[in-house]
Amino acid sequence: MHARHPTIGVFDSGFGGLTVLKVLLELVPDADYLYFGDTARLPYGSKSVETVARYAVEAAHYLEGHGAELLVIACNTATALALERITAAAHVPVVGVVEPGAEAAASVSKNRKVVVLGTEATVSSHAYRKALEARGLDAREKACPLLVPLVEEGWVEHSVTEQVARIYLDEAFADGFRDADALVLGCTHYPLLKPLLHRVAPSHVSIVDSAESTARAVAEQLRSLLPASPAIREERRARPRLKFFATDSVEKFRRLGERFLGRAIEDVRHVDLKE
Amino acid sequence: MHARHPTIGVFDSGFGGLTVLKVLLELVPDADYLYFGDTARLPYGSKSVETVARYAVEAAHYLEGHGAELLVIACNTATALALERITAAAHVPVVGVVEPGAEAAASVSKNRKVVVLGTEATVSSHAYRKALEARGLDAREKACPLLVPLVEEGWVEHSVTEQVARIYLDEAFADGFRDADALVLGCTHYPLLKPLLHRVAPSHVSIVDSAESTARAVAEQLRSLLPASPAIREERRARPRLKFFATDSVEKFRRLGERFLGRAIEDVRHVDLKE
Repeated sequence: MHARHPTIGVFDSGFGGLTVLKVLLELVPDADYLYFGDTARLPYGSKSVETVARYAVEAAHYLEGHGAELLVIACNTATALALERITAAAHVPVVGVVEPGAEAAASVSKNRKVVVLGTEATVSSHAYRKALEARGLDAREKACPLLVPLVEEGWVEHSVTEQVARIYLDEAFADGFRDADALVLGCTHYPLLKPLLHRVAPSHVSIVDSAESTARAVAEQLRSLLPASPAIREERRARPRLKFFATDSVEKFRRLGERFLGRAIEDVRHVDLKE
Repeated sequence: MHARHPTIGVFDSGFGGLTVLKVLLELVPDADYLYFGDTARLPYGSKSVETVARYAVEAAHYLEGHGAELLVIACNTATALALERITAAAHVPVVGVVEPGAEAAASVSKNRKVVVLGTEATVSSHAYRKALEARGLDAREKACPLLVPLVEEGWVEHSVTEQVARIYLDEAFADGFRDADALVLGCTHYPLLKPLLHRVAPSHVSIVDSAESTARAVAEQLRSLLPASPAIREERRARPRLKFFATDSVEKFRRLGERFLGRAIEDVRHVDLKE
């Protein structure tokens, strides 16, 4: 790995992984970044293990081929369904979003009971439940298939979204999970709903953002490698080194992606994985 | 074409096209049917022309290779973005959903003003507006990206869906289109929302279901070919000849598909288009 400026490859089915990249740019500004959004085949959340694994391995190879020295699977569905397959297929270290999310939940939950929100595929895989049970916590996983389209519609503070979130959370924080005290955002679209979810979730609940936890885990892993000079970090923070690849429309990636990344997206290249 | 029992290939990105197949089974029970759902790559509604055209042509070739003598593109997005490309690539007649939908709207609209609901991609293509303007009608197209996920969540009679539909319809039937008197369902998921849309749309509005209009157009095209014997038709209606192909999970196709088709789905085969 390049000691001063490692190249980090960030992968997602679409735009959500940009919430991970956003925190990475804050915590590890020294790195160069490649972001791959498989927007032609999104969403992964409703697809099967086989399909998601095949797509994710193709994307991982693409990023490696373009110089990534560390891969961040910034997609809960791809992590939940295919992290082992990606790790086996890759020649560089791979970090997923589930373990960091579970670790953060374990560190904040006093009641040892956690609710996890995710896509249908993430929930069906029970990846979060396994990771949380391995840490001695009880978990209830709740599939929330409408939240991604609501975020993509831009309705992050809309009354309809609030009602939908309330329905999902009422179902999740019921019966044996009334006293759950951590809520894991198990999808990288959900950080955009954090203010709304803070209002809707029971007041005793801490929200764990798996995007943020993952960026922290990556920062921790790279800490010894990177220059400590605050001047360099500030310079990079102002002008990060970013390249984007998208399998569907570049124009759309730019437009929708800016909402997730919170800054302008410039250098986007179209990729056809069949080439 | 086989005179007594032509094989009709029906294609959609996922499940919505089953609403077209449902009406076809009623109107043309004598035919054999192949249904192809490109569920690994759905939804098409938010993707670009290039991507949708490539996917749709692959599916058309697959159906032809399995004996389809007539192709029904039972997907508004694929029709709107790629009908010409599909027709050029196919060796059999191809019927899309846009022209039959526009024709039906033209025949019911007295004010010559029509509102069309569709996915983002269908609306951006302006395929409906062009088809309606060619018939001397004014059209307003309204993208409704939340309706497909709401239908797939099964919330076809939910208060949230009603609010979302009200927001979309209020925006569509505004200003110069207050007196529009036809509402075209320009997505094959929407027929499941017909009862709800009847309640929410202004009372003077006729709803035009492009799925139904397309099935009628196919029936018309095949009328001279098919046996008139009511006994044969009844027998086939009770036991239609159906084969399904899906690019994602077969189990999920069966489960979700039954909601759209209104009958049990049995013979589903998994297809990997990269094979």
